[in-house]
Amino acid sequence: MDSISIGEAFGSEFLGTAMLILLGAGVVANVILPKTKGFGGGWLLINFGWGLAVFAGVYVSFKSGAHLNPAVTLGLWSSGAEEFAPGVPVSVVNGFLYVVAQVGGAMLGAVLAYLAYKKHFDEQADPGVKLGVFSTGPELRAYSWNFLTEVIGTFVLVFVVLLFGNTPAEIGPLAVALLVVGIGASLGGPTGYAINPARDFGPRLVHALLPIRGKGSSDWAYSWVPVAGPAVGGILAGLVARWYLG
Amino acid sequence: MDSISIGEAFGSEFLGTAMLILLGAGVVANVILPKTKGFGGGWLLINFGWGLAVFAGVYVSFKSGAHLNPAVTLGLWSSGAEEFAPGVPVSVVNGFLYVVAQVGGAMLGAVLAYLAYKKHFDEQADPGVKLGVFSTGPELRAYSWNFLTEVIGTFVLVFVVLLFGNTPAEIGPLAVALLVVGIGASLGGPTGYAINPARDFGPRLVHALLPIRGKGSSDWAYSWVPVAGPAVGGILAGLVARWYLG
Amino acid sequence: MDSISIGEAFGSEFLGTAMLILLGAGVVANVILPKTKGFGGGWLLINFGWGLAVFAGVYVSFKSGAHLNPAVTLGLWSSGAEEFAPGVPVSVVNGFLYVVAQVGGAMLGAVLAYLAYKKHFDEQADPGVKLGVFSTGPELRAYSWNFLTEVIGTFVLVFVVLLFGNTPAEIGPLAVALLVVGIGASLGGPTGYAINPARDFGPRLVHALLPIRGKGSSDWAYSWVPVAGPAVGGILAGLVARWYLG
Amino acid sequence: MDSISIGEAFGSEFLGTAMLILLGAGVVANVILPKTKGFGGGWLLINFGWGLAVFAGVYVSFKSGAHLNPAVTLGLWSSGAEEFAPGVPVSVVNGFLYVVAQVGGAMLGAVLAYLAYKKHFDEQADPGVKLGVFSTGPELRAYSWNFLTEVIGTFVLVFVVLLFGNTPAEIGPLAVALLVVGIGASLGGPTGYAINPARDFGPRLVHALLPIRGKGSSDWAYSWVPVAGPAVGGILAGLVARWYLG
Repeated sequence: MDSISIGEAFGSEFLGTAMLILLGAGVVANVILPKTKGFGGGWLLINFGWGLAVFAGVYVSFKSGAHLNPAVTLGLWSSGAEEFAPGVPVSVVNGFLYVVAQVGGAMLGAVLAYLAYKKHFDEQADPGVKLGVFSTGPELRAYSWNFLTEVIGTFVLVFVVLLFGNTPAEIGPLAVALLVVGIGASLGGPTGYAINPARDFGPRLVHALLPIRGKGSSDWAYSWVPVAGPAVGGILAGLVARWYLG
Repeated sequence: MDSISIGEAFGSEFLGTAMLILLGAGVVANVILPKTKGFGGGWLLINFGWGLAVFAGVYVSFKSGAHLNPAVTLGLWSSGAEEFAPGVPVSVVNGFLYVVAQVGGAMLGAVLAYLAYKKHFDEQADPGVKLGVFSTGPELRAYSWNFLTEVIGTFVLVFVVLLFGNTPAEIGPLAVALLVVGIGASLGGPTGYAINPARDFGPRLVHALLPIRGKGSSDWAYSWVPVAGPAVGGILAGLVARWYLG
Repeated sequence: MDSISIGEAFGSEFLGTAMLILLGAGVVANVILPKTKGFGGGWLLINFGWGLAVFAGVYVSFKSGAHLNPAVTLGLWSSGAEEFAPGVPVSVVNGFLYVVAQVGGAMLGAVLAYLAYKKHFDEQADPGVKLGVFSTGPELRAYSWNFLTEVIGTFVLVFVVLLFGNTPAEIGPLAVALLVVGIGASLGGPTGYAINPARDFGPRLVHALLPIRGKGSSDWAYSWVPVAGPAVGGILAGLVARWYLG
Repeated sequence: MDSISIGEAFGSEFLGTAMLILLGAGVVANVILPKTKGFGGGWLLINFGWGLAVFAGVYVSFKSGAHLNPAVTLGLWSSGAEEFAPGVPVSVVNGFLYVVAQVGGAMLGAVLAYLAYKKHFDEQADPGVKLGVFSTGPELRAYSWNFLTEVIGTFVLVFVVLLFGNTPAEIGPLAVALLVVGIGASLGGPTGYAINPARDFGPRLVHALLPIRGKGSSDWAYSWVPVAGPAVGGILAGLVARWYLG
């Protein structure tokens, strides 16, 4: 791949993560909001929707390595990689810019998904369902166990990505997409698999800021779990990959 | 790929779009018409059916770039591409011929799908269900919001197609198929994802013309949405892709 | 691919079709027989099961071109191909041997699927369900329309296979598998998509011959439809492919 | 692929099988334990979950050939292969070490899946459901028929793997994953498709050893079936592949 500037990488991560969240929040909206074609469509539909959201996002974000996820950026760093993308060295500033782009893109994606399903949000009475389109929440609230589940799920994502490609772009869009389908199917049961701090935090911020009719709490009490869990999982995966590939 | 004549391109788009609509209308018939094997099979079945309809259509239409969709043709034009297919320069006349071939092929495909499910159409009492096999309709009728949803869905399709291949044929049949599965899962909830003017207009015309037993209105009042929305989405995607790849 | 003898081709088609029917009849057994893990698992499960049955069958039958289906053999013949497989010229005798191998393999596969689900066959009271594991049957019995549906479905299969590979082996196991998933999703609703004379006739013969507890009629009255329909569809696909690729 | 030492192979099989069982037991937990996001998600969800568990496991275990399964190791041996992986000759000692690594990895994976779903295990009253996350059990208990079903299912797995790649790593992660989806869909109905002695025995041992709240019997009476059946199926597949590839 050609070298790119950090500015190009920023735009690439921003647009790619916007695509990821537009499609990812979209499939949740389709399954849980009322009067949609996909209402009650089941967990496998949600898993494929998120997997193919990653698929599209990786195409959009190819030139920056398609991290789309601070946990991937952190995992690359802890794995000892020298570059986030060709021409973009690993550094605190560049990592920070990747994360800002990812959160900003996630916010744009959440707004677009909201607009695509606007009339269905207006139909929905339950504020908890509305929040569920934007951000994850646990089925059984137990912060330490929820945290552990997110650590394990994110470890799987970042570890496999690092093993045979340094970035999602190198492992290939289809492989990352299928990996995410699998993680959702297998490890998404307790917490809804954030496995990506930007995926959860950006849309939660949008939920808090947008004047959504009949919305309720943005559940900030839980919000640290899908940020800290994936961060820890990503860093651990980088360390183990470094040792394993060593 | 080898250069082709506009006549060959016309035939290729015609047959490819016929394949697309035969399989696409077919899966809807299987899920919503009575007494089929797939009755009530769910949204993911419909998504895979349409995705694999694109898959087959792209193989059939490979040599003309497998647009299969006026929104793709428009997006190529607005992206600044020089050719619709090898040997077929971008021009108003050629673009018009692509669209005519796509609409004509969609009509043939709809007739074939009708014939394949003829006995099941005869069983069905509700005229709205019959129309649903041919054309899209919104769950919540709100023309401007429905229009916006179609713009967003088509933007995703054409933007990703343009990013890493100039045409669906170049990005590969499997990648386009999966992209369409994903768009259906994520953005098909409100309007049933036409994301293709020919996909909706051609079969609607067939619905109006065919002597279908017990059919009702062809709902022409809604018909501009799945034409104009995808057209705008495709053109926007071309413009953004031109800037992004620029 | 290396040249093979007609004897090797015979063995290859025999084993490949056995694999196809073992897995294809197996998924139907899993969904419709009582007390299985997959009971009531839905049409998409059946579609994936059959698609991946083709996938496995193509690997097993790679060296003979993986026809697995008299309609493919007939389509190759009508398309003007010179060889069924490298070293195996198109001829009446060789075509006959391919079909015999396919029917014989289908019979072996049906016996194995019966054995794998033996205890579940014993549980089932309804003889119609038992037959349904072996052979296809229409939801609405109307021979001419059922015939037409099988013609259309098989045309799609053989036409796409011929377009970009002369045989299923050349188009690749994954592409053929997905094509079959799509045909099942879209065109399987009325008749259960035999789209392969051997797939229907071989297992029906097994159903007639095996001492299955509580079995009923083998429905020979319908049996010509899933033989003649696919044969006609395959021949038509070969003729159109010859003209289209011409 | 580069040559590896038996120690590296041990670690690779250990980690890869841990990944396999983490995701495989995970998807079962998601579908059968109470109050998960995927509760009641259906057989196809379980099939994709296990298929993609293999997918991830193959990436992790690439350098040792990604057996992940004593039946594959046995099948390679009976097929007459000279190496389990580049640099690791077929021998009783090496085969034993592969199996130990696989069982050990399966135990680690089961523990991790238990931890990821800890709160949902605590919710569940029925001990049989709890065991179902760890190990397979038949729907209709009939040891000889259950054994036969496991022989057939494992034969399909190992035979196809051996035909066009000597190991799962050579056939490719996606192909093995899809093959496992297909075997689950088609042959998993009666016994839940162990098709892998380590997959069943390792987690059963964990079930027996872990202090799981409200657990019941580990059903050791059945435990020989998912060990012996896959072992016999794998050895048979190796013998037939040796003859077939001649």
